[in-house]
Amino acid sequence: MIVYDKKYDVIVVGAGHAGCEAALAAARMGRPTLMLTINLDAIALMSCNPAIGGLAKGHLVKEIDALGGEMGRNIDATGIQFRVLNTKKGPAVRASRAQADKQLYRLRMKHVMEQQDDLDLKQVEVTGLVIEDGEVVGVDTRGGVRFLGKTVVLTTGTFMRGLIHIGLVNYPGGRAGDLPSIGLSDGLKDYGFDVGRLKTGTPARLDGRTIDFDRLEKQYGDENPIPFSFSTERIEQPQVPCHIAYTNPRSHEIIRSGLDRSPLYAGIIEGIGPRYCPSIEDKVVRFPEKDRHQTFIEPEGRETVEVYPSGMSTSLPIDIQWAFYRSIEGLERVEIMRPAYAIEYDYVNPIQLHASLETKLVRNLYHAGQINGTSGYEEAAAQGLMAGINAALRVQDKDPLVLGRSEAYIGVMIDDLVTLGTKEPYRMFTSRAEYRLLLREDNADLRLREKGHAIGLVQEEVYSSFLAKKELIESELVRLSKERLAPSAAGEELLEEWGLVGIQNAISYEQLLRRPEFTCQDLSRVYPAIMDLPEQVREQLEIQIKYQGYIQRQLEQVDRSARLESTRIPEDMDYGTISGLSAEVREKLARFRPDTLGQASRIPGVTPAGITILSIALKARYGR
Amino acid sequence: MIVYDKKYDVIVVGAGHAGCEAALAAARMGRPTLMLTINLDAIALMSCNPAIGGLAKGHLVKEIDALGGEMGRNIDATGIQFRVLNTKKGPAVRASRAQADKQLYRLRMKHVMEQQDDLDLKQVEVTGLVIEDGEVVGVDTRGGVRFLGKTVVLTTGTFMRGLIHIGLVNYPGGRAGDLPSIGLSDGLKDYGFDVGRLKTGTPARLDGRTIDFDRLEKQYGDENPIPFSFSTERIEQPQVPCHIAYTNPRSHEIIRSGLDRSPLYAGIIEGIGPRYCPSIEDKVVRFPEKDRHQTFIEPEGRETVEVYPSGMSTSLPIDIQWAFYRSIEGLERVEIMRPAYAIEYDYVNPIQLHASLETKLVRNLYHAGQINGTSGYEEAAAQGLMAGINAALRVQDKDPLVLGRSEAYIGVMIDDLVTLGTKEPYRMFTSRAEYRLLLREDNADLRLREKGHAIGLVQEEVYSSFLAKKELIESELVRLSKERLAPSAAGEELLEEWGLVGIQNAISYEQLLRRPEFTCQDLSRVYPAIMDLPEQVREQLEIQIKYQGYIQRQLEQVDRSARLESTRIPEDMDYGTISGLSAEVREKLARFRPDTLGQASRIPGVTPAGITILSIALKARYGR
Ligand SMILES: Cc1cc2nc3c(=O)[nH]c(=O)nc-3n(C[C@H](O)[C@H](O)[C@H](O)COP(=O)(O)OP(=O)(O)OC[C@H]3O[C@@H](n4cnc5c(N)ncnc54)[C@H](O)[C@@H]3O)c2cc1C
Ligand SMILES: Cc1cc2nc3c(=O)[nH]c(=O)nc-3n(C[C@H](O)[C@H](O)[C@H](O)COP(=O)(O)OP(=O)(O)OC[C@H]3O[C@@H](n4cnc5c(N)ncnc54)[C@H](O)[C@@H]3O)c2cc1C
Repeated sequence: MIVYDKKYDVIVVGAGHAGCEAALAAARMGRPTLMLTINLDAIALMSCNPAIGGLAKGHLVKEIDALGGEMGRNIDATGIQFRVLNTKKGPAVRASRAQADKQLYRLRMKHVMEQQDDLDLKQVEVTGLVIEDGEVVGVDTRGGVRFLGKTVVLTTGTFMRGLIHIGLVNYPGGRAGDLPSIGLSDGLKDYGFDVGRLKTGTPARLDGRTIDFDRLEKQYGDENPIPFSFSTERIEQPQVPCHIAYTNPRSHEIIRSGLDRSPLYAGIIEGIGPRYCPSIEDKVVRFPEKDRHQTFIEPEGRETVEVYPSGMSTSLPIDIQWAFYRSIEGLERVEIMRPAYAIEYDYVNPIQLHASLETKLVRNLYHAGQINGTSGYEEAAAQGLMAGINAALRVQDKDPLVLGRSEAYIGVMIDDLVTLGTKEPYRMFTSRAEYRLLLREDNADLRLREKGHAIGLVQEEVYSSFLAKKELIESELVRLSKERLAPSAAGEELLEEWGLVGIQNAISYEQLLRRPEFTCQDLSRVYPAIMDLPEQVREQLEIQIKYQGYIQRQLEQVDRSARLESTRIPEDMDYGTISGLSAEVREKLARFRPDTLGQASRIPGVTPAGITILSIALKARYGR
Repeated sequence: MIVYDKKYDVIVVGAGHAGCEAALAAARMGRPTLMLTINLDAIALMSCNPAIGGLAKGHLVKEIDALGGEMGRNIDATGIQFRVLNTKKGPAVRASRAQADKQLYRLRMKHVMEQQDDLDLKQVEVTGLVIEDGEVVGVDTRGGVRFLGKTVVLTTGTFMRGLIHIGLVNYPGGRAGDLPSIGLSDGLKDYGFDVGRLKTGTPARLDGRTIDFDRLEKQYGDENPIPFSFSTERIEQPQVPCHIAYTNPRSHEIIRSGLDRSPLYAGIIEGIGPRYCPSIEDKVVRFPEKDRHQTFIEPEGRETVEVYPSGMSTSLPIDIQWAFYRSIEGLERVEIMRPAYAIEYDYVNPIQLHASLETKLVRNLYHAGQINGTSGYEEAAAQGLMAGINAALRVQDKDPLVLGRSEAYIGVMIDDLVTLGTKEPYRMFTSRAEYRLLLREDNADLRLREKGHAIGLVQEEVYSSFLAKKELIESELVRLSKERLAPSAAGEELLEEWGLVGIQNAISYEQLLRRPEFTCQDLSRVYPAIMDLPEQVREQLEIQIKYQGYIQRQLEQVDRSARLESTRIPEDMDYGTISGLSAEVREKLARFRPDTLGQASRIPGVTPAGITILSIALKARYGR
């Protein structure tokens, strides 16, 4: 290997959604950063659905944005249909989603990366890590070059030993049309990493010219598209609709007729697939009673005829694919442009990670994205961001940034991964978060902007406009609690309309706003100036006031568990010497090696009694 | 293999510059066409320099356009610097060149193909041909599908058994970042094709942010960019400059120091490279006396920092690349984004082709582009166009369209390929054409539009505006020959200025225009209306009148050889039975199997005497 003369602080392997955020974060924090990828033309390529966000995933995007990441701004600039989901439900589960122009999405991300100071981009396949005394010091590449770096972030996605399946046919590939990554995961195994096999699948890409859209239901985005990023003013680009179609009993018949040639059912695929994101054959097998399944036919861009039938992923043979897609009403003549396929790939069990995403086995090595067993762009991006941040902090000899389960979905996800590990593709859900009312999309900036700024990722300009917003909310909350409506001052009519007839005392604006269905718009009848506040501020006033009670209760829960979460367990803790632990608890702790008492408490099989003993032992030995 | 139910008239394998033109031509001629490619995101990707046209290549683009191809319109829509070369020289060697925004170029081409009726696009690797009784009937693919087609056009570029070299490191790939095509060429060998090995190389892509452009010379495009296509009105998009830099003796020292690790000089590369497009190490070795070589630093697009240093291709090891590029003034800090590399690939000797580009061994199978041993986008596109046309004509049971050496550069190129074969990458040069004055860029439409229209490729609207232009030229030529300037009518001053003082007789406008340096602009002083004619028409008047004598002489030469060119030799001609032929001539004819006497006359080793004997034999046997 020939050693490159420039030495980097952070080397990021991979330019998927994880790699891009990792590299941008490290570079924006001023660390000389190198991003290596197999193909510079496939930066931030969307391997599967051309969309960002959705339930719980939208939360991740907002958190990424709040911390200073790029995903939100990138989709704002290239989205072609924005929708807020669950608008009828409580603010905790409201979520943003947008469809992307896939080519523009990747081109813009490449452009942003190219404009970033302290960031070099190079096209080359990484074939191995350079490790000295348990510490990573660089990477070796296919071209015969060794790049040296103080830290390395691996974000290899579905590429490591990627194997593509279409029916009983299979061949190596990192993604359809892409070269796989060979060699890297063998090296990881040699260093003691628990390398496993997962699989995921994608539907066919269909030729929109051969679909009878007139016979399908149209679905439009929101009339006033709301941006993802807290710093995007407005979505300017034109929006397009997508279409809804359904399978039918005949479709399911066709699918069943192909199961004997399904690589999954024939036992050829060993990797475990995503339960929550099943292929169409899984759905048909698991829910035999359902006589139809819905699909959104989503455009892949404004300038292409390629469309993506969501939820219709499959690894069935190609003849079954033809017959099945054509069995759908409106798709009778459809031509497949790219076949559906499943892909198996190597991942590394994330229990071998610290909460900083640094590996426990090799110092200064971080893993982020699909390599950690997750699936989804947003999950990948969020981890990439944290890994990039923590690599940059490490180089600066600073403590890692670890988000708690009460601070961010990102914290929930990473905690889940590193304390529980995963044997199947992990995806974010709102149900995974115990403090859902605290972790809303709308307050992601209030939760995280300061942290992003403290580590140098959120720029001053963005930060000061955030501070102004925050102060406005606070001062306005005070005002609303003080200003009162005297029954005498309100007209008869208003009292009647608001159901306040007969009240004796003045009622504060805050009290008014606490009432269900009562909005700032309503309040403006007695306090017109409230409508001059920015919409984002009014939204906070409504939510914070309406849900104050619930929020308060969750905050108290957080307080109660704070001690557990903040009690660190030394890396070299010898569980064998703690008397009183059951054999099972001891074995679990030794295997998972939790970073904190909080993590320890979430390891399945570790009992509350065990936690108490461990806690006493920590106090006795380290005074923690 | 599972057989696809739809049967195509034309199947095009590959979506490079050859594949795109082939597929568009066949579909535009109304034939149900299928284009298959390894990666739909890499349609019309420019593997090497981000530019179209140049000497002789510009001629090809204009001819492609005149026949109804797409390359000219595509570069017109996405070019970022247009220049006409050789404007100081005669009209025969004037040539257009434009730099492209590489990503926009490929995206627009994909868009055009997607909008084309009768054209299906599918992503899949072709692994073999289906041949029955010496006739191709379809292709087999990696996904396990057999597609049936009445004709097949192979345009595999550099992908067949592609092997990438960087120094002594090598690995399979169709292009950097792309999967190779495996299996197809083995099958071709089995059918008796003479499969050889060629190589080509590309420079590194450099990070424009690390180049000191202020220290380099700027080169701007033409102030009024002139479109390639005869149907583009105007170039609207903003134009950008490129920059000129030079190697120096130290660069050459560095290069020499790496030669022992050059795959070429170390004998690892067996494929033959392009002589006229040498790598920088070739230049340094072959011209030891030169102490510098020039490079144009060309942007790869308006939105990217990647730049292309033309003429600086190399397969030297990466450490030599670093040192060498950085030895260039202004590039001292340069970062390589994608390394330079050479690629070896399989091609099929084009002497196994008819002039229609149909193979002689397998009926209905056509080869076009780099698979025929050529190099260059324009060469590929021109062949692709002809192969697509001829496949479509075959399906309609029509005679092939074969362009003569006096009709088009395309004719020269294909005739060269099929009569001489090639053992090294073939590139178009003006010097290859014997009738250069007939084959100008400016008259490509006059030469070829009618042919393009006759086969149904040039659309009516385009055609009628062509006819109008043609008629205008003809009527105007008549007018110019009739209208005269009487000495009495011209003022004293004008006569003096034009050097006509003392002439007795009236002089025709044509005579005036024939004088060197005399332009329509000059003539407008006595015939102002001439400036109302479109510029393209005035250009024709000047050129046709000024060069009439030379043109006439070349036309007479063409006439003389017309009989040879039009005399067809039957496919099953048995040369063994013609008495009088020397053993060598007999062997050459039997091996090359020329389609016409003209082709036969150009086979090296076939003597004029041999041609006379052959000609007599043909007349005797077939009355030709
Ligand atoms: C077929 C398919 C179906 C999917 N289906 C779903 C789904 O249904 N739902 C869902 O949520 N998600 C799905 N995904 C997953 C989603 O695409 C990923 O979760 C997401 O892209 C992961 O991002 P990443 O950054 O971790 O990796 P990727 O986006 O895969 O990017 C990996 C990057 O690493 C680079 N790389 C890899 N190895 C090397 C190396 N050795 N050297 C240099 N560079 C390297 C690659 O070139 C690439 O740039 C699917 C993915 C695929 C391929
Ligand atoms: C490294 C490099 C350097 C070059 N340098 C020069 C140069 O200096 N000067 C110059 O003039 N030209 C150069 N070229 C050549 C130029 O790029 C080609 O001449 C031109 O692109 C050829 O066009 P094509 O259509 O024949 O093939 P390509 O552009 O190579 O396209 C081939 C297409 O076929 C597809 N394909 C291949 N096999 C299969 C299969 N089995 N199944 C399905 N699809 C398949 C590919 O996916 C691709 O779409 C270089 C090319 C490379 C790669």
